[in-house]
Amino acid sequence: MHFATSETYAGGVLSDLYPDAPALPLVSVENAPLEGIDVAFCCLPHTASMPWVQRLRRAGVLTIDLSADFRLDSAAVYERWYKVEHTATELLPEAVYGLVELNRAAIREAKLVANPGCYPTGVLLALAPILREGLLAEPQVIVDAKSGASGAGRSLSLTTHFVEVNENFSPYKIGYAHRHISEMEQEAEKLAGGPVHFTFAPHLLPMSRGILSTIYVRTAEILSAEEWVALYREAYAEGPFVRVLAAGQLATLRHVIRTNLCVISLTPVEDTNTLVIVSAVDNLIKGASGQAVQNMNLMLGLDERLGLQ
Amino acid sequence: MHFATSETYAGGVLSDLYPDAPALPLVSVENAPLEGIDVAFCCLPHTASMPWVQRLRRAGVLTIDLSADFRLDSAAVYERWYKVEHTATELLPEAVYGLVELNRAAIREAKLVANPGCYPTGVLLALAPILREGLLAEPQVIVDAKSGASGAGRSLSLTTHFVEVNENFSPYKIGYAHRHISEMEQEAEKLAGGPVHFTFAPHLLPMSRGILSTIYVRTAEILSAEEWVALYREAYAEGPFVRVLAAGQLATLRHVIRTNLCVISLTPVEDTNTLVIVSAVDNLIKGASGQAVQNMNLMLGLDERLGLQ
Amino acid sequence: MHFATSETYAGGVLSDLYPDAPALPLVSVENAPLEGIDVAFCCLPHTASMPWVQRLRRAGVLTIDLSADFRLDSAAVYERWYKVEHTATELLPEAVYGLVELNRAAIREAKLVANPGCYPTGVLLALAPILREGLLAEPQVIVDAKSGASGAGRSLSLTTHFVEVNENFSPYKIGYAHRHISEMEQEAEKLAGGPVHFTFAPHLLPMSRGILSTIYVRTAEILSAEEWVALYREAYAEGPFVRVLAAGQLATLRHVIRTNLCVISLTPVEDTNTLVIVSAVDNLIKGASGQAVQNMNLMLGLDERLGLQ
Amino acid sequence: MHFATSETYAGGVLSDLYPDAPALPLVSVENAPLEGIDVAFCCLPHTASMPWVQRLRRAGVLTIDLSADFRLDSAAVYERWYKVEHTATELLPEAVYGLVELNRAAIREAKLVANPGCYPTGVLLALAPILREGLLAEPQVIVDAKSGASGAGRSLSLTTHFVEVNENFSPYKIGYAHRHISEMEQEAEKLAGGPVHFTFAPHLLPMSRGILSTIYVRTAEILSAEEWVALYREAYAEGPFVRVLAAGQLATLRHVIRTNLCVISLTPVEDTNTLVIVSAVDNLIKGASGQAVQNMNLMLGLDERLGLQ
Repeated sequence: MHFATSETYAGGVLSDLYPDAPALPLVSVENAPLEGIDVAFCCLPHTASMPWVQRLRRAGVLTIDLSADFRLDSAAVYERWYKVEHTATELLPEAVYGLVELNRAAIREAKLVANPGCYPTGVLLALAPILREGLLAEPQVIVDAKSGASGAGRSLSLTTHFVEVNENFSPYKIGYAHRHISEMEQEAEKLAGGPVHFTFAPHLLPMSRGILSTIYVRTAEILSAEEWVALYREAYAEGPFVRVLAAGQLATLRHVIRTNLCVISLTPVEDTNTLVIVSAVDNLIKGASGQAVQNMNLMLGLDERLGLQ
Repeated sequence: MHFATSETYAGGVLSDLYPDAPALPLVSVENAPLEGIDVAFCCLPHTASMPWVQRLRRAGVLTIDLSADFRLDSAAVYERWYKVEHTATELLPEAVYGLVELNRAAIREAKLVANPGCYPTGVLLALAPILREGLLAEPQVIVDAKSGASGAGRSLSLTTHFVEVNENFSPYKIGYAHRHISEMEQEAEKLAGGPVHFTFAPHLLPMSRGILSTIYVRTAEILSAEEWVALYREAYAEGPFVRVLAAGQLATLRHVIRTNLCVISLTPVEDTNTLVIVSAVDNLIKGASGQAVQNMNLMLGLDERLGLQ
Repeated sequence: MHFATSETYAGGVLSDLYPDAPALPLVSVENAPLEGIDVAFCCLPHTASMPWVQRLRRAGVLTIDLSADFRLDSAAVYERWYKVEHTATELLPEAVYGLVELNRAAIREAKLVANPGCYPTGVLLALAPILREGLLAEPQVIVDAKSGASGAGRSLSLTTHFVEVNENFSPYKIGYAHRHISEMEQEAEKLAGGPVHFTFAPHLLPMSRGILSTIYVRTAEILSAEEWVALYREAYAEGPFVRVLAAGQLATLRHVIRTNLCVISLTPVEDTNTLVIVSAVDNLIKGASGQAVQNMNLMLGLDERLGLQ
Repeated sequence: MHFATSETYAGGVLSDLYPDAPALPLVSVENAPLEGIDVAFCCLPHTASMPWVQRLRRAGVLTIDLSADFRLDSAAVYERWYKVEHTATELLPEAVYGLVELNRAAIREAKLVANPGCYPTGVLLALAPILREGLLAEPQVIVDAKSGASGAGRSLSLTTHFVEVNENFSPYKIGYAHRHISEMEQEAEKLAGGPVHFTFAPHLLPMSRGILSTIYVRTAEILSAEEWVALYREAYAEGPFVRVLAAGQLATLRHVIRTNLCVISLTPVEDTNTLVIVSAVDNLIKGASGQAVQNMNLMLGLDERLGLQ
């Protein structure tokens, strides 16, 4: 590693901020030297990311972008959800959606990977096998998601003040409002080969990290818990980071916090065609930095587990 | 007040355990003197409650029972969900389900009130107007509920150990498994005049108290948020303890903790007939003791707000 | 009550911000109408408070100031600790230090009361009987204090971000650095009739409210726990808000949160002259607003408990 | 590794209980096969540990005992603090107190190591340099310690119920009462070459893990913060797990949680000979299992960092 960037702490050293981190020099983005770099992780806010990804790609650097700027295939969809113009549309065709377990082959060839959002990571992994097999009875999905406070970022606002979060639990942007719906629909529709509509209700948990999504679908076939587990385990047999729990067990945040795992449980509701899928990820690892490293490993032809176990 | 009962602390005084509480003598249930008592609150576990409610009713004492023993109209349904025989079936016909906002008239005349469970309180208040008006498009309801750890009671188990609950969030008894479904279905079906099926997913929050339920239904008519709010406010105009938030606002646990309130918000999902209802109660007050006092007030012909504001 | 002031929410109504609060109009400080007001609570930051207290006193309004500006008798001491000039020194002679249990008579006659800081409230109540009786063996006190995050105020900084406070515990300003030492020494020295030195180590707790101070002193006489309790109960016999626990019990934050109480426990260390005093207050009530109301009650000749039980 | 023991889960596999753990078979202590074992970690409660350590030592197994049974050199002192007879006194002469940074040479030769208590680990590391240099002005130490709830163990009691711990902060066993005082005095007196008296005030934090001790001593010489830091860094130059912070910085729990580190900060109080030392450890790692592994590494002639970074 050559450097990390920071506007606030430029001139310092990463390990001064985070004692467990390596002693990387901190430089401002403006002054970041791009020559000699193989891969860059770009962690800027959406819109701000575009010119830097352009600069990185022009310099031939493999780029993993953690913003939303290159996750959506269509600039029009981007502009509808993010309410700003997309000014790097020339890069959209080469950008690959970096959900490793769904796109391994494409990521191995990619020069620009758009790292998925934290909510979509857990939700899409929970739905992919069922979507791919055409097992939805109706193209509607309800996602009731709960996220730790780090999901809201490190910037300061009353909504992340300790006294506001502690001993509270609150929904936000319920219905068809949260921007991550755009990613979830795009990728779900690719898997299903047709329209899929999401009702999405995120909530803020009084804890630091983790996202647990409880997902309700109606299935075209009624399978036993054991059969669902078998179908999902088969679907994720290739990779090490998706764990499908045995029938009767339920995913919790304790299963995944501080890991790159996505843990999934499957509960069919007796005498109905309703299936309740629970998926858990650590929003800071599998939902962000861990998945970014997993993408890098593939892009460089390395074992995808390197640095993640 | 004459006394409180306690097996563990019999012989002591309530204010020694809870400095803010009145200095009531603590006696064991066996030795509780029933003469001269107007009203009794019976807070025993289910099954254990039956003989004491029988004794209280034989002594002519108005009784508010906080167990599940008298909530279900049918002994057969009770036995199916609780897996024990009902040995006080002669009292079932006189027992009134004590959800004040739905049953005020009957509670005013009641001698025996079954105080509702904590989950059903918030869920039924969130659904009653829509059920009564016949506005469900299909008789299926999804309830994603999140409860603080006091909902699990004061008895000791690993599931309520601090280190297990803290920095965790976990579902339990997902699907059609939790006993409170029996109450929810019974009362929902009375309101709807036909069958209603619940998919119920409770989760344990890392906080002490409060239940927030996020409820998903499909409606027979598509109303605006403002219209839903108006319909609900009309339905709860009579009583002081149900607050329906304005369109665009969302119920949170902070709204209700340490109060007898049930706060409800209504969010129709654009371009669909899906309605997301959020309801919040404090499981220890509106979901238990506060509602019990509210019931007592009505049974004694008092203002239902006494002691609760 | 006529109005409350707010710069951020001027033009609004208090109950919109805090549903449980009364529906007071919110006006900016600039536009606050002072005519017809009996008492004003001034809750501005230190220094900012001075001109407003001057204006209030010129208008003849009884004033309770919650900043540090009128707590110190000496402008020089103020300037040494707060590093700014005191520009309202003409009011210092009339300002009374509003720790009710120590200054009841003076507060009853006061026109301007300086509400004590949150740390000094609990610490001075814990030490007053021993200081007044001359029972310190040496004029040195060690205070190890732990405060909930609301002690740091509502303004936004990384130190109150949920993710920084949660699952952490951290000391700050250890030694002879925290400004509240100036108040503690001033009042302790008045009580003792001579110099008293404080070593003060505050810590930030991962909870919303409450201050627990563990205080270590060496005593001139060795008394039993029961004798210390008797001495303290005698000292606080007059008022309702200081509770001295029985020998063998220990004060906790649960004893005081959401109350105007200061709870004190006394533990002599066997075979030594060391006494460990634990005092607990809710920093938002006895350490701020509750004590302010208690002061108002006395200034207006009312029962000091009004509105506080 | 061959097996782990469990009475509750005998017959199972460790990874079923803790998904991140290795798949060790779980056997009951009774059935534990000792042949072929090089080292055993014995984690039984005090007293229960004695016969098993005897059996292990008879079988020639290197033993690291995590109970209190072999920490005290004197059976009489053990019996005074633990109120039970010591029935394995023949092993006391060979037992080495396993605080690595103080006893490296002896541990390398030891057959039986008594792993220190969680509180003594952080406290003794914070005091050792000053004791060894004879820099205490008086032989008295005040330790104000704060521990996460895992310090109380996994057994069930109301004191570890989530609702009791959450949003509370409480002292316990204040003064000269906690059994860990016996270890602290024994080892401190060895270092100082004379008597050292501890006043010890432990408190329970509303968090899962970590111990932060704030320690007050009077020093025979007045050094600057920088001089204290230099003296401590020199004392701990050999090992990797004690970090002495730069002058002006303060140790927090965030520095140590999930690590084998002990982080120490030193704050002399200006114009006095009082020194405030803050030490932080993770009670489950440096205060228990991590230190046990560190001891094993030394006993086996390995690098003491193996498995701990």
